[in-house]
Amino acid sequence: MKLSARNVLKGKVKKVVTGAVNSEVIIELPGGAEMTSIITKTSAESLKLKEGSEVYAIVKASNVMIGID
Amino acid sequence: MKLSARNVLKGKVKKVVTGAVNSEVIIELPGGAEMTSIITKTSAESLKLKEGSEVYAIVKASNVMIGID
Amino acid sequence: MKLSARNVLKGKVKKVVTGAVNSEVIIELPGGAEMTSIITKTSAESLKLKEGSEVYAIVKASNVMIGID
Amino acid sequence: MKLSARNVLKGKVKKVVTGAVNSEVIIELPGGAEMTSIITKTSAESLKLKEGSEVYAIVKASNVMIGID
Amino acid sequence: MKLSARNVLKGKVKKVVTGAVNSEVIIELPGGAEMTSIITKTSAESLKLKEGSEVYAIVKASNVMIGID
Amino acid sequence: MKLSARNVLKGKVKKVVTGAVNSEVIIELPGGAEMTSIITKTSAESLKLKEGSEVYAIVKASNVMIGID
Repeated sequence: MKLSARNVLKGKVKKVVTGAVNSEVIIELPGGAEMTSIITKTSAESLKLKEGSEVYAIVKASNVMIGID
Repeated sequence: MKLSARNVLKGKVKKVVTGAVNSEVIIELPGGAEMTSIITKTSAESLKLKEGSEVYAIVKASNVMIGID
Repeated sequence: MKLSARNVLKGKVKKVVTGAVNSEVIIELPGGAEMTSIITKTSAESLKLKEGSEVYAIVKASNVMIGID
Repeated sequence: MKLSARNVLKGKVKKVVTGAVNSEVIIELPGGAEMTSIITKTSAESLKLKEGSEVYAIVKASNVMIGID
Repeated sequence: MKLSARNVLKGKVKKVVTGAVNSEVIIELPGGAEMTSIITKTSAESLKLKEGSEVYAIVKASNVMIGID
Repeated sequence: MKLSARNVLKGKVKKVVTGAVNSEVIIELPGGAEMTSIITKTSAESLKLKEGSEVYAIVKASNVMIGID
């Protein structure tokens, strides 16, 4: 599937923390930066996410804020 | 200000496209990947964003989806 | 690509309204209900969306509110 | 209350999964498609959601992504 | 309609700025604080929003970030 | 850091409810209105949020819906 989302960053799962409803997925990007995603536990299981899984972190442009120092 | 947002990526503005209400801001991350942000035109002006501005792309973890091949 | 998003509804583009930065895409679901999506103009062009295009409307579960009468 | 949200789909609750903070609500749309919503446990309790409750799934247009095959 | 959204703040429209696709609506809260909302132009017209309209600003709890000094 | 977010409301933490993955933070605004935020447990801990903490509730304008009676 091709997506309208403008931000699709390739990375590798570093850690999955599972709750009753949601899971927290920590993704390591090339270069060492990290992204954190909260998805449903059902989705994390359905995608079989675990340490080392190759994934894309996907963000809609309207969900990206900007900050400056 | 220190933020709850888990995803704060440093980059440099590559391009700003301005509409009547919103602006599209393209941010170049170190390593060459790009992120796109939609913010209000008023915010883009208030932050004085232009090509070369040093910025942070900020994303709340609940707004990060995951995809796999 | 397989997505974590829990809501993926198949439909057909009914109308695209294009602004300077964003496009509004009206999608007709089977049965006649409609969904409206706002994506960047660049995404709408990149997906070549036009009346009749077959698309998926994709929504992260954390972005679905619930109302009752 | 009349809402600005462009996407208001009527359905029936199929299942509620309750965590410490959030609840997952699965909604069956007419025709058999399903939508999943994550709301706070407090909201799910306040709306007295349970299997069979008639509800609306509400999504802001800016939270609808588009995908194509 | 009763909503799952945890944040429903009453206010009065101070200004509407209209673009091709979206409208920016500035809302004055009691006490003088302001909130800004971006909704589709179609929604702003359908709700007949104009200076002085009494409205609710509605935000899903998962869309509220927290910052500290 | 200066943010693009248009909605930054000062308040005081009234209550923190902690789950396995997320925390619910109830914020009291001056005047007595309340806002509820869901952030990751890790963020709540990293910001050391507890009853009485002075915080800002931050909302991107594109995440504010509007309702009328």
